Amino acid sequence: MDVSALKELLENVAAGQVKTEDALEQLKKLPYENLDFASIDHHRSLRTGFPEVIYCPGKTPEQTGAIVQRMLDKNAVILASRAEAAHYEAIKAVAPHAVYFETARTVVVRQGEAPEPKGLIAVVTAGTSDIPVAEEAAVTAEAMDNRVLRVYDVGVAGVHRLLARLDEIRQAQVLIVVAGMEGALASVVGGLVDCPVIAVPTSVGYGANFGGLSALLAMLNSCANGVGVVNIDNGYGAACLASRINQRICK
Amino acid sequence: MDVSALKELLENVAAGQVKTEDALEQLKKLPYENLDFASIDHHRSLRTGFPEVIYCPGKTPEQTGAIVQRMLDKNAVILASRAEAAHYEAIKAVAPHAVYFETARTVVVRQGEAPEPKGLIAVVTAGTSDIPVAEEAAVTAEAMDNRVLRVYDVGVAGVHRLLARLDEIRQAQVLIVVAGMEGALASVVGGLVDCPVIAVPTSVGYGANFGGLSALLAMLNSCANGVGVVNIDNGYGAACLASRINQRICK
Amino acid sequence: MDVSALKELLENVAAGQVKTEDALEQLKKLPYENLDFASIDHHRSLRTGFPEVIYCPGKTPEQTGAIVQRMLDKNAVILASRAEAAHYEAIKAVAPHAVYFETARTVVVRQGEAPEPKGLIAVVTAGTSDIPVAEEAAVTAEAMDNRVLRVYDVGVAGVHRLLARLDEIRQAQVLIVVAGMEGALASVVGGLVDCPVIAVPTSVGYGANFGGLSALLAMLNSCANGVGVVNIDNGYGAACLASRINQRICK
Amino acid sequence: MDVSALKELLENVAAGQVKTEDALEQLKKLPYENLDFASIDHHRSLRTGFPEVIYCPGKTPEQTGAIVQRMLDKNAVILASRAEAAHYEAIKAVAPHAVYFETARTVVVRQGEAPEPKGLIAVVTAGTSDIPVAEEAAVTAEAMDNRVLRVYDVGVAGVHRLLARLDEIRQAQVLIVVAGMEGALASVVGGLVDCPVIAVPTSVGYGANFGGLSALLAMLNSCANGVGVVNIDNGYGAACLASRINQRICK
Amino acid sequence: MDVSALKELLENVAAGQVKTEDALEQLKKLPYENLDFASIDHHRSLRTGFPEVIYCPGKTPEQTGAIVQRMLDKNAVILASRAEAAHYEAIKAVAPHAVYFETARTVVVRQGEAPEPKGLIAVVTAGTSDIPVAEEAAVTAEAMDNRVLRVYDVGVAGVHRLLARLDEIRQAQVLIVVAGMEGALASVVGGLVDCPVIAVPTSVGYGANFGGLSALLAMLNSCANGVGVVNIDNGYGAACLASRINQRICK
Amino acid sequence: MDVSALKELLENVAAGQVKTEDALEQLKKLPYENLDFASIDHHRSLRTGFPEVIYCPGKTPEQTGAIVQRMLDKNAVILASRAEAAHYEAIKAVAPHAVYFETARTVVVRQGEAPEPKGLIAVVTAGTSDIPVAEEAAVTAEAMDNRVLRVYDVGVAGVHRLLARLDEIRQAQVLIVVAGMEGALASVVGGLVDCPVIAVPTSVGYGANFGGLSALLAMLNSCANGVGVVNIDNGYGAACLASRINQRICK
Amino acid sequence: MDVSALKELLENVAAGQVKTEDALEQLKKLPYENLDFASIDHHRSLRTGFPEVIYCPGKTPEQTGAIVQRMLDKNAVILASRAEAAHYEAIKAVAPHAVYFETARTVVVRQGEAPEPKGLIAVVTAGTSDIPVAEEAAVTAEAMDNRVLRVYDVGVAGVHRLLARLDEIRQAQVLIVVAGMEGALASVVGGLVDCPVIAVPTSVGYGANFGGLSALLAMLNSCANGVGVVNIDNGYGAACLASRINQRICK
Amino acid sequence: MDVSALKELLENVAAGQVKTEDALEQLKKLPYENLDFASIDHHRSLRTGFPEVIYCPGKTPEQTGAIVQRMLDKNAVILASRAEAAHYEAIKAVAPHAVYFETARTVVVRQGEAPEPKGLIAVVTAGTSDIPVAEEAAVTAEAMDNRVLRVYDVGVAGVHRLLARLDEIRQAQVLIVVAGMEGALASVVGGLVDCPVIAVPTSVGYGANFGGLSALLAMLNSCANGVGVVNIDNGYGAACLASRINQRICK
Repeated sequence: MDVSALKELLENVAAGQVKTEDALEQLKKLPYENLDFASIDHHRSLRTGFPEVIYCPGKTPEQTGAIVQRMLDKNAVILASRAEAAHYEAIKAVAPHAVYFETARTVVVRQGEAPEPKGLIAVVTAGTSDIPVAEEAAVTAEAMDNRVLRVYDVGVAGVHRLLARLDEIRQAQVLIVVAGMEGALASVVGGLVDCPVIAVPTSVGYGANFGGLSALLAMLNSCANGVGVVNIDNGYGAACLASRINQRICK
Repeated sequence: MDVSALKELLENVAAGQVKTEDALEQLKKLPYENLDFASIDHHRSLRTGFPEVIYCPGKTPEQTGAIVQRMLDKNAVILASRAEAAHYEAIKAVAPHAVYFETARTVVVRQGEAPEPKGLIAVVTAGTSDIPVAEEAAVTAEAMDNRVLRVYDVGVAGVHRLLARLDEIRQAQVLIVVAGMEGALASVVGGLVDCPVIAVPTSVGYGANFGGLSALLAMLNSCANGVGVVNIDNGYGAACLASRINQRICK
Repeated sequence: MDVSALKELLENVAAGQVKTEDALEQLKKLPYENLDFASIDHHRSLRTGFPEVIYCPGKTPEQTGAIVQRMLDKNAVILASRAEAAHYEAIKAVAPHAVYFETARTVVVRQGEAPEPKGLIAVVTAGTSDIPVAEEAAVTAEAMDNRVLRVYDVGVAGVHRLLARLDEIRQAQVLIVVAGMEGALASVVGGLVDCPVIAVPTSVGYGANFGGLSALLAMLNSCANGVGVVNIDNGYGAACLASRINQRICK
Repeated sequence: MDVSALKELLENVAAGQVKTEDALEQLKKLPYENLDFASIDHHRSLRTGFPEVIYCPGKTPEQTGAIVQRMLDKNAVILASRAEAAHYEAIKAVAPHAVYFETARTVVVRQGEAPEPKGLIAVVTAGTSDIPVAEEAAVTAEAMDNRVLRVYDVGVAGVHRLLARLDEIRQAQVLIVVAGMEGALASVVGGLVDCPVIAVPTSVGYGANFGGLSALLAMLNSCANGVGVVNIDNGYGAACLASRINQRICK
Repeated sequence: MDVSALKELLENVAAGQVKTEDALEQLKKLPYENLDFASIDHHRSLRTGFPEVIYCPGKTPEQTGAIVQRMLDKNAVILASRAEAAHYEAIKAVAPHAVYFETARTVVVRQGEAPEPKGLIAVVTAGTSDIPVAEEAAVTAEAMDNRVLRVYDVGVAGVHRLLARLDEIRQAQVLIVVAGMEGALASVVGGLVDCPVIAVPTSVGYGANFGGLSALLAMLNSCANGVGVVNIDNGYGAACLASRINQRICK
Repeated sequence: MDVSALKELLENVAAGQVKTEDALEQLKKLPYENLDFASIDHHRSLRTGFPEVIYCPGKTPEQTGAIVQRMLDKNAVILASRAEAAHYEAIKAVAPHAVYFETARTVVVRQGEAPEPKGLIAVVTAGTSDIPVAEEAAVTAEAMDNRVLRVYDVGVAGVHRLLARLDEIRQAQVLIVVAGMEGALASVVGGLVDCPVIAVPTSVGYGANFGGLSALLAMLNSCANGVGVVNIDNGYGAACLASRINQRICK
Repeated sequence: MDVSALKELLENVAAGQVKTEDALEQLKKLPYENLDFASIDHHRSLRTGFPEVIYCPGKTPEQTGAIVQRMLDKNAVILASRAEAAHYEAIKAVAPHAVYFETARTVVVRQGEAPEPKGLIAVVTAGTSDIPVAEEAAVTAEAMDNRVLRVYDVGVAGVHRLLARLDEIRQAQVLIVVAGMEGALASVVGGLVDCPVIAVPTSVGYGANFGGLSALLAMLNSCANGVGVVNIDNGYGAACLASRINQRICK
Repeated sequence: MDVSALKELLENVAAGQVKTEDALEQLKKLPYENLDFASIDHHRSLRTGFPEVIYCPGKTPEQTGAIVQRMLDKNAVILASRAEAAHYEAIKAVAPHAVYFETARTVVVRQGEAPEPKGLIAVVTAGTSDIPVAEEAAVTAEAMDNRVLRVYDVGVAGVHRLLARLDEIRQAQVLIVVAGMEGALASVVGGLVDCPVIAVPTSVGYGANFGGLSALLAMLNSCANGVGVVNIDNGYGAACLASRINQRICK
């Protein structure tokens, strides 16, 4: 039952053409049966400030291109994550203004002018190998209209590098801390700032890092307050959470 | 918005006292806002044939007794699982006809006459140590008005014991196979019958059984067709699933 | 000892040519020694309604083709699971009417007319990436003469999509719920229906999904009643169990 | 080197009694040697809005009491987490206005008037067994001057219970979702709101929940956007993160 | 169908009172239906040389005593494993000649004279903490009529202690090597002898021994040839396997 | 110090040219310093009946060929395990009589006539996918001069297939049971025979078999007596242990 | 063959009473047969500077006392680790000068004057809950005649606390870093010093620390150079390694 | 604020151009804000005796070459670890004197004359498959100016091979023990020497070695004293720690 059908029903009730008892019966079944008339998806886009993302692995470039094409008229910004160059080519074919952020493995399709970015999300990494995940976070956050500061390669084995950039970092409303191996950066940073910290464990490392498990457990057990953790290598998820926070603060 | 309010709204629309546009606005918010008017919980009781269960661990006997008391007038059958003797005492105080199945650690409170049990669920165990979990399943299934056959201690290290009782087992509409250690019974039984098999791994064993993990993995990897697995030691859950199947078959 | 030998023995006993004591000795050894005279395999085919499946990984196309050829005269339906295109080619060479379901990675060889499908098994997925596993389940269930309803991409992050299709889903006798990542769909669906639910965890996801472990554990720990779990990505196994249930209900 | 010593050094430089070269040498060693003059701890209290917490396990009541006594004159609010009744008694002996939240296992010592609570943090649980962890979160968040809404027992096996309270939940600036077993609530809630969600897995359950691992993995793999996860049973940590977010939004 | 029934059937066939066709029909169903007439359990006792063992955990002393009583007339030797003193008391009440091996946590009830022990099984431990498991193995092996040599506390951190006793060890037909922690003894011993080695990992140790996992994995990955592994702390199982080997060799 | 040096020392002592005190000092250091004079390696070959094996993974064909060449004059039988065709080619170049067992991925180089094989080792598999591991065991055991019986594809989902071949299996002195997935075959077989059983878990399967972990745990937790376990897929190791046992029995 | 027997043999050779050939034969068997004449154990005591330690768990106080008594005349220092008060009482009864370090759960029995401690081992902890493990390390290291500096509660969530004490820490020849939860301290400290760092993960924490696994993995994956890890909670082992290093440096 | 700025500030204070109060304010912020003026990195190089290492995986040869070029003028020795031949080619293009150690997968670029190596680090392996990891350790240790002894293929399954080389091994100041599979070598060696032992588990093996977990756990649980463990396959890390120890001893 879509909105026009519902409207028609009510008009029929008003016109006396449908009895209230019959209308009541129809409406009782409504909650589970048909939610389509509520513009839930539209609300969702408005709410999150970011309509839709395409996760590329397991999709052919052609499929990816086709999905983008269907979305083009309904979404101001489309994001394709974990995109290979071939995915980008297929997207560019239907959306010539698409931009490929290679390190971030992310394609961004934006239609119209980008609004002024808000607030500040700092993306901090322990090492250089963590940068692809960090860039996924940074590019995603920027596509969601947040201002982003990148602070890379300030891992804890040389804590002075981190301290040297602390003033910059403290400007941010939210931090995204990206680290593999022992994942200690989240705890050290968490103790030096007072804003929310989103920790992203990465699979960087080898041996007993068990594909990112070492950093994941370290971050979950952080002795610092105010640290929330997302999945291993999930730069995109970290950006979503950071954006939700930053956008609320800067509303 | 309950049913009478909804009715009133429609009557007001019919009477021309509320405009259809305004009614539409109110109804749009309805699906997520207020589902109470739909008698969902009632439907649920009717559907599952079993209204409510109380999981006792973490609840004091007093709390358990109080919960039973609140339920007494709305439910034909109440079941308290993982119940200690003290839970039973507290329940008996408010429901004198409560019955305690000690091995099953289950209290059953039934009001009125029990209907004729339907179909047949066979509960099969590998060893004697698996019996408490099996009894939880059997007692629960009986409380749900299923006929139950117990076939205990027919583990695979003496496969003739199982074969000797195969004819009985094959009468069942559904099997619940309860086994710890290497959990092999589910596979052997699964290959000898053609009805659905619900496998319950138990934490029986020691060392590399890792609290039931060995049996759980074995059952998930069963080479036999038609085996579904529930959580370790979850006799109650197995009975729920078996009952859903048996009741449908024997409807 | 085959049937004719056994018959001969009995005739000799009847004829007084073999003493009952000697016959007794021979028969005592019988159970373990020779079960071939019992038409067990035939019973098995009849029972399960589905004679034989070929698991393709680790088999060359040639081997697969040869196996199909041997089976052709004894089985009405043959199913090759996890089949690559090359397996299909080899099968088609010996069974030209073979059909390849590419997404399901399954080849079905059916001889003669298919019987009218029975009952209804609904196959429900959380995301689009779960579809290959779901299709393996759906195609297998159809090959076993069950009617199948596909309800895809109704994951819990947009619960209204699921609710919108609930009426359809509730028509089914059995549900197969296919989900990766956090596997929550099984619990949500399990709470909305009263038929048996077979949960299939998939390896869809990355990082801390640990190859499907996250969905597997979630489904085993489901707070909903009536959920049985099969192995990760095991669409075939789910269909076998669902078919056993559906066929019994609709007998 | 404390502030007065530093001041003296500068005055000596100004007075020409210490050469700039010598002063330079002393200052070079400063960063790592002596950070005490910087009022870091004071800043920290101010920043986080919550000076100090005492984790009670492994501490005797006497030790706990002694720590509270030392803190009393420097901290407006002191919180003792995972406190037994005996810890509370010892604290009350030195701080008679201490309040014991038994379900939350938390003692709060507040000196002076509490400020008006800000914003809104909603604490949502799947089941009743999750309430102790939820209360730890709620009490902690209240002690940090946040307004808190409790929405308990709205687990996904009865999704209508959650939907019925969605309007309330959507008022919150931040959500804390507490769930054990399959931890699905975080994903379902995450898909229905647009504020940040902090997920707390609990050890509620048995068998293959492996002490909370099932809920933890589910939450880390949530298909919903905007979900950050803290350690198993870590209500306190969730409150810290939620408070950081809520306080920033409502500044 | 027991032996007398089968005999009767044959006699009826011989007497012409049952037709061979009808007898054939009855016999066809025999293999799975009724194996009782075959003296399988008797064979089993004869085969293994050791009729029955009672695993005490989860059984009350009374239950244990009752089981022993039932077994007394059919078994020459009864063994109760993981027995507490209370189990022993209950067994002694029905079998006064029972002997309690306290370190081995094993009760042995032997009726009549023990036969001369055969061959030689050496039980070797790494440390003194491994002795309870080793004694369970040794006492069990002795109850199964094997000669046993105990070589304790010859762990690899002092390899000379092992080498000093190598000549003795090399007399054995089978070795049982019992070790916790890093479980290295199995590999070192395995390289020095040419008889079969049965490795028993123990849960001795702490921290990253994970309840015996470290020793278990080490033994499974032994670089020495000829090592078979049993479950963690499973001295009984090691003795069963060693006895099977030793008894065959010395037959 | 080699034998001649030792001999010289003693002769010098006998001749009075070296003082006993000085000789004593030299000999004291001997045990750890120089064991070369003891023909340990020769003993080892004699003991195990099988001098040397080359594990091919990580070695180039050239390296493998070179190693074989060096061994040729000292060893009657050389075995190359996990060998690719290329390894075989390189070996054949230096040892033209080398034989490649493709399924077993094993090359055997035997010089001179093979002795009469002894005893009987039965190699039993659950499925056809387990055959490569089983063949590795069988070929290795044959190279060690044991008679081998192959009994393949008798998995527990069709227990009659196993029972049908039980008489053959019972002829063996030792069993090697090879199974993946739920690994139940070891328990079922272990309960039907009275000889030692060596269980080889295989990595056959998918999903929650976790690379063979499911079968490994099942076999370690076998409820049958007399089962020893080797590493996952370790057919070679199983054969070594089986050969040690069989050779002792048939000596 | 002890030293006197060996001497006698040589004298007999010298005297011409034993032929060199016969002596050679006897000596050939020597390496494995009898290493007792080599004063290995004495060397060991001298080497490690610490003769013997008694691990108390699993030992009764009486057993512990008896062991100490046997050791008293051969060892200058005896150490009982993981000792309860009752162990101490039993030790004091036989060695009245025994000292009980309660937090360290360690009893030290020293006979005669302690030598001047050498070098410097710094024991650093992240939190106060890590102190028992740290004290075990410190007391053990002191008993091994090393000078020890304790630097406690300098965890990374407040990195200034660590930096403030860096000068002290840098005096040490070896560091022992003790930390639970995320174990980040080892990495941060490792990057600030240039001496060897021994990291001790502790089981401090809860939930996803999995009994110390989180800290263990973090330390093994440390991005800092020069970090070696010991077992969870193994303060004793850390002290042994640290002492070996410190004693060599300060020799 | 760099050194010159600091100097200028002090000169301005001295000149009376900046007030001491204002200077004080600026200096207060200094510790965290600007550590650059402290020559930390230079100190670091001096301290560790080894300035910089490039971890090649994830870096293109071009990137690697570029990094080397930037480092060339500041570092006497540059090391590229886990380097492929292509990385070497790119490095050689900018540093023609670079040397590629193929087995060690390590490129060393040394400028000027190498100093005389100090002390002795022995690198000991269990098998030949462990040699690549061992060579990484050996080459790294040599690049850090340590003398290195290689003792390969002395695994515990033939303990005499180890004993035969014990005198050599005992010359070392530090041992690096490299072993996969059951990792027993660390314990055996640890019991035979009195110097510090650094254990490197390798991923050599298959099946239940779980990528090196078996050796890792064995080494962490070593019953020998004085063993520290580094990450799986981490030859580089072992060399760093060994070098720190050896350089201190031989200073």
